[in-house]
Amino acid sequence: MKTIVVTDPPRADLEAVEALGGYGVATVHEALGRVGYLGPTLRPVWNGACIAGNAVTVLCWPGDNLMIHVAVEQCQEGDVLVVTTTSPSTDGMFGELFATALALRGVRGVVINAGARDVAALRDMGFPVWSAAVSAQGTVKATAGAVNVPITIGGQLIRPGDVIIADDDGVLCVPRADVATGIHAAQARAAKEEATRKAFAAGELGLDRYALRDRVPGLGISYVKYDEV
Amino acid sequence: MKTIVVTDPPRADLEAVEALGGYGVATVHEALGRVGYLGPTLRPVWNGACIAGNAVTVLCWPGDNLMIHVAVEQCQEGDVLVVTTTSPSTDGMFGELFATALALRGVRGVVINAGARDVAALRDMGFPVWSAAVSAQGTVKATAGAVNVPITIGGQLIRPGDVIIADDDGVLCVPRADVATGIHAAQARAAKEEATRKAFAAGELGLDRYALRDRVPGLGISYVKYDEV
Amino acid sequence: MKTIVVTDPPRADLEAVEALGGYGVATVHEALGRVGYLGPTLRPVWNGACIAGNAVTVLCWPGDNLMIHVAVEQCQEGDVLVVTTTSPSTDGMFGELFATALALRGVRGVVINAGARDVAALRDMGFPVWSAAVSAQGTVKATAGAVNVPITIGGQLIRPGDVIIADDDGVLCVPRADVATGIHAAQARAAKEEATRKAFAAGELGLDRYALRDRVPGLGISYVKYDEV
Amino acid sequence: MKTIVVTDPPRADLEAVEALGGYGVATVHEALGRVGYLGPTLRPVWNGACIAGNAVTVLCWPGDNLMIHVAVEQCQEGDVLVVTTTSPSTDGMFGELFATALALRGVRGVVINAGARDVAALRDMGFPVWSAAVSAQGTVKATAGAVNVPITIGGQLIRPGDVIIADDDGVLCVPRADVATGIHAAQARAAKEEATRKAFAAGELGLDRYALRDRVPGLGISYVKYDEV
Amino acid sequence: MKTIVVTDPPRADLEAVEALGGYGVATVHEALGRVGYLGPTLRPVWNGACIAGNAVTVLCWPGDNLMIHVAVEQCQEGDVLVVTTTSPSTDGMFGELFATALALRGVRGVVINAGARDVAALRDMGFPVWSAAVSAQGTVKATAGAVNVPITIGGQLIRPGDVIIADDDGVLCVPRADVATGIHAAQARAAKEEATRKAFAAGELGLDRYALRDRVPGLGISYVKYDEV
Amino acid sequence: MKTIVVTDPPRADLEAVEALGGYGVATVHEALGRVGYLGPTLRPVWNGACIAGNAVTVLCWPGDNLMIHVAVEQCQEGDVLVVTTTSPSTDGMFGELFATALALRGVRGVVINAGARDVAALRDMGFPVWSAAVSAQGTVKATAGAVNVPITIGGQLIRPGDVIIADDDGVLCVPRADVATGIHAAQARAAKEEATRKAFAAGELGLDRYALRDRVPGLGISYVKYDEV
Repeated sequence: MKTIVVTDPPRADLEAVEALGGYGVATVHEALGRVGYLGPTLRPVWNGACIAGNAVTVLCWPGDNLMIHVAVEQCQEGDVLVVTTTSPSTDGMFGELFATALALRGVRGVVINAGARDVAALRDMGFPVWSAAVSAQGTVKATAGAVNVPITIGGQLIRPGDVIIADDDGVLCVPRADVATGIHAAQARAAKEEATRKAFAAGELGLDRYALRDRVPGLGISYVKYDEV
Repeated sequence: MKTIVVTDPPRADLEAVEALGGYGVATVHEALGRVGYLGPTLRPVWNGACIAGNAVTVLCWPGDNLMIHVAVEQCQEGDVLVVTTTSPSTDGMFGELFATALALRGVRGVVINAGARDVAALRDMGFPVWSAAVSAQGTVKATAGAVNVPITIGGQLIRPGDVIIADDDGVLCVPRADVATGIHAAQARAAKEEATRKAFAAGELGLDRYALRDRVPGLGISYVKYDEV
Repeated sequence: MKTIVVTDPPRADLEAVEALGGYGVATVHEALGRVGYLGPTLRPVWNGACIAGNAVTVLCWPGDNLMIHVAVEQCQEGDVLVVTTTSPSTDGMFGELFATALALRGVRGVVINAGARDVAALRDMGFPVWSAAVSAQGTVKATAGAVNVPITIGGQLIRPGDVIIADDDGVLCVPRADVATGIHAAQARAAKEEATRKAFAAGELGLDRYALRDRVPGLGISYVKYDEV
Repeated sequence: MKTIVVTDPPRADLEAVEALGGYGVATVHEALGRVGYLGPTLRPVWNGACIAGNAVTVLCWPGDNLMIHVAVEQCQEGDVLVVTTTSPSTDGMFGELFATALALRGVRGVVINAGARDVAALRDMGFPVWSAAVSAQGTVKATAGAVNVPITIGGQLIRPGDVIIADDDGVLCVPRADVATGIHAAQARAAKEEATRKAFAAGELGLDRYALRDRVPGLGISYVKYDEV
Repeated sequence: MKTIVVTDPPRADLEAVEALGGYGVATVHEALGRVGYLGPTLRPVWNGACIAGNAVTVLCWPGDNLMIHVAVEQCQEGDVLVVTTTSPSTDGMFGELFATALALRGVRGVVINAGARDVAALRDMGFPVWSAAVSAQGTVKATAGAVNVPITIGGQLIRPGDVIIADDDGVLCVPRADVATGIHAAQARAAKEEATRKAFAAGELGLDRYALRDRVPGLGISYVKYDEV
Repeated sequence: MKTIVVTDPPRADLEAVEALGGYGVATVHEALGRVGYLGPTLRPVWNGACIAGNAVTVLCWPGDNLMIHVAVEQCQEGDVLVVTTTSPSTDGMFGELFATALALRGVRGVVINAGARDVAALRDMGFPVWSAAVSAQGTVKATAGAVNVPITIGGQLIRPGDVIIADDDGVLCVPRADVATGIHAAQARAAKEEATRKAFAAGELGLDRYALRDRVPGLGISYVKYDEV
């Protein structure tokens, strides 16, 4: 591993980040072609938050949060800290002291593919965290890792400066280059969803709205009365 | 797989369904002889709901929610949509647009042995969903499956028209033929539980109430003082 | 297995137990040298509780809660019932009737390395439970186990009379002999955390506060500008 | 649960069973429309066996093999014993003593959705077992279950007298009524596979053989040179 | 954690250890009352080995094998090295170089509740290892742990000098104090198993041999003909 | 997702690939700084193979192997096909027919982060496969994916033309640009390992060879006699 700290990665414009984030994880994921979702194992440690920001990435050794300390200094207003480990770990690498330091710098939240702790305090502070586990297990500060290198979580590549959106549905990564496209696509998708919502509320069926009814027989699906099965 | 949609399966009388559901998952499960529980992996996406209804079953290909669209049309007042996949999947096959369509038809909730999304919206709508995962991962509409065929979740067989009860303890399936028996058994069980609750609150022990005390020595259990171990 | 019920194990002084518990799971865990945490798989069935008490331990056969009935009689004011099984199980061995009996005896809560049920009722009662699963699956009362013998959960040894602390971060076991030391260490740790919290809120970095900055180059970590990678 | 032992279920003709089994798990699974596979968690305790037989089903309490003892008496030449538990278990419910008794009765092998033990002895005896775990953990004989009732494993329903096929790819259940159809379908499938094998060995591509090449653009797939991405 | 290396723990007599080990994991586990099995997650990295020896225990930080280096020096003829981590890890902490050093000291094998690597070389050397994972992921040598302190794996307590038996069924720990009792109990159990094996091979049923037949009706189990269900 | 097929990616020189592969997964992983290991969940479907080749990457929809058909055409002598899915799947997407087609093209083996089947035939053919599961569950050919785009497995990024090494320890990905460096580093590492092997076989300890003995007290590790604990 290259044990480096990359400084001053380019970030997306915060206004654009927030515009994109406003559409939420599911809508942006769909709008961009069903990409970038970090998987169902990352869950909010408290419900109801919805954030968007620029990724500062951290790669730690399991059981060791040294590099999070190194990373704090690299964070600025509008960032989201995204942490993973070189091999799977559930240890409680992140808690309220880190949150205090990050909140001061304007960091919007944390995504950690390992454990978080101090859940009650994080909820009280209103500092949002998505993690793979809640665990009080403490960690050391002994082994080098990296900050602002590309990392992967849940099969998705996350580069420093990519945009992170997170809400109760989980976490999404949008490449920085796709933010503008994403806003337009999400806007269109949201409009389409709103129209569908109204149509469904008025009784239309997806079978008709998505023109599926005619495709059903071609897929080999037939209708049979219960008594005739 | 028979790629069929079975129409108009018989359902249980809704008044009876609701009478049974009123006893809750754990009580009905016990009353009927400890059967029908769909296992601990199905969890409510928001807490506090308690529903009962007639099952409309759906069998989907993993990563594909085509058959849920087909199934909506088969749903009516008092139904519960029960979805599984031909092989394990956590994808977000169900969300608020489906919920809008189902709520209009009087569907009581959804049980899905895969992922659900739009958690915040579902909570705001008050539409209850029990799922194996929360995931924003989108799905396609490409491959045939079946509606209203027998399916299995958590080792339990679920046939169309069976009764589904779901609360914070999880999900229960009661065969349609057992509803009447179930109501009587649950009533008796609830009465017994209430009496036990009072007895326990008054200091009686389960050891005595369930006549276990005399069986303990026969099972080879002996009492030893800490200092004499 | 020795199928015994050990009676009257020594307990820690309740005032000391509560003093220790007041520092919370994460702080006490760290203060004592990062030991005793029962792992991230034990989660509260409802959030927000924080308890401390003396362990009464129970070893059950999977699918069988006989020994919990036996154990209730061994519980007294200030105890925490800690249950595990001889092999992994998610069955719903514990529910509100047990909670009623235990609450009457002044038991502070339950830790169960298996399933709990009646979640809504437990929340309404305010009786706290940490479990490995929520499951309505019922159990029998057929096979002998043990009460107040040493058990292990999550790689930690728990002896009767050890102190259990549990909050939203999970569950901690502190050997009875370490309670006095623990209070002092936790007090010191809490004071240190409070000072760090203030320092972080004032903008100091962990890199400086923990004297990590000078160690970073020695660990082979170098800083590189994004454009020069 | 109905704690019954169903005697003398109808079985498929053994000659037909063996004819079907000769095509192997994957081929028969495909031939019948991709149904009946019991999932990847059931693995052979030793490799290389390939069996087919009529199911005798057993439903046990977790940690309890009483009903396997009851089931042995119900087995006859050409049967396969299929065991599951009322809730998940990895305990070592089956070992070489059972295998000795079953081999004498002409039972072809065992499928157990729990643990097996005495692996070395089973391999030496040549008695094939597919299990969800290898575990030496012993069990009791205390709680009632059922024999020859419908059970489910891996999302599949297994009724007494259904045909079980098992090889290094896992375990398949074929409804008794489908055996004749299955033999014809498997024969056709095997012939088609053999032709495909020869075509592939001669350099033909699946893209051409399955007429996929023309569908590819319609699915939105485009070809791009590496240098032009 | 007490970061200590405990030297010269008492060991069991090697002749007795080997006598006990000769009965194998499953038989000794049963003979001693179904205790001490380390669970189904520890599997041999190659099949067919069967060992017994005195435990040298190691507690490592996840991703760090420093303490295995420290432990090698504490090993002697007839030992088995038993390694676990302070929180779950699958990293490849053990490989052929360690095996070379341990084989020279007469160590019988290794049990590691984490990852092992160099599988092909270990098999070629004939050095037996039971592990929770096979993984090439490398580790560091940075953080302190302990040697010859009590550890737990799979819910079992393992103290230095306890006896470890391992074969294709997994790993068993027998307290040093129970070795003599264990040999007698295992001898009796093995004789009983041999008699049962002969009886089963001659057609006797477990129902009769274990006097279960008369208990079956009392357990509420009834026999029903298939046609009368 | 960009549903593209990237043609003619650059590959590493095959002679260099084979030189690197000859050092095996663990040695190359260590030599390059402990990077690139695809994790312990990918296991060989049969033991003993050791391969190296250039990656052709495939991204499939779960339950759908269409893109493997598309990918075969892109393979050439010395390639390794590396397959993953857009969300987790265990379905049997790969079997002996594909292996027949790939073997003809000189493909060295397959790495699939999903299921493989026809295990017995693959073993008989000597065609090596590493997979996350063995499963007979069949798949469809309905939904678009991509070939020769960057994918991730086990937290590692794999680009087309990267070098894949796989043996009984699992699978390693080496960036194409690092092959030359890798050969030198692996050669040095292998020489060092050989020297260590000899030293260990002659009785030297890792404590001394790696100069750990002097660091041990500084890490807070102390030696205590068993009787003095």
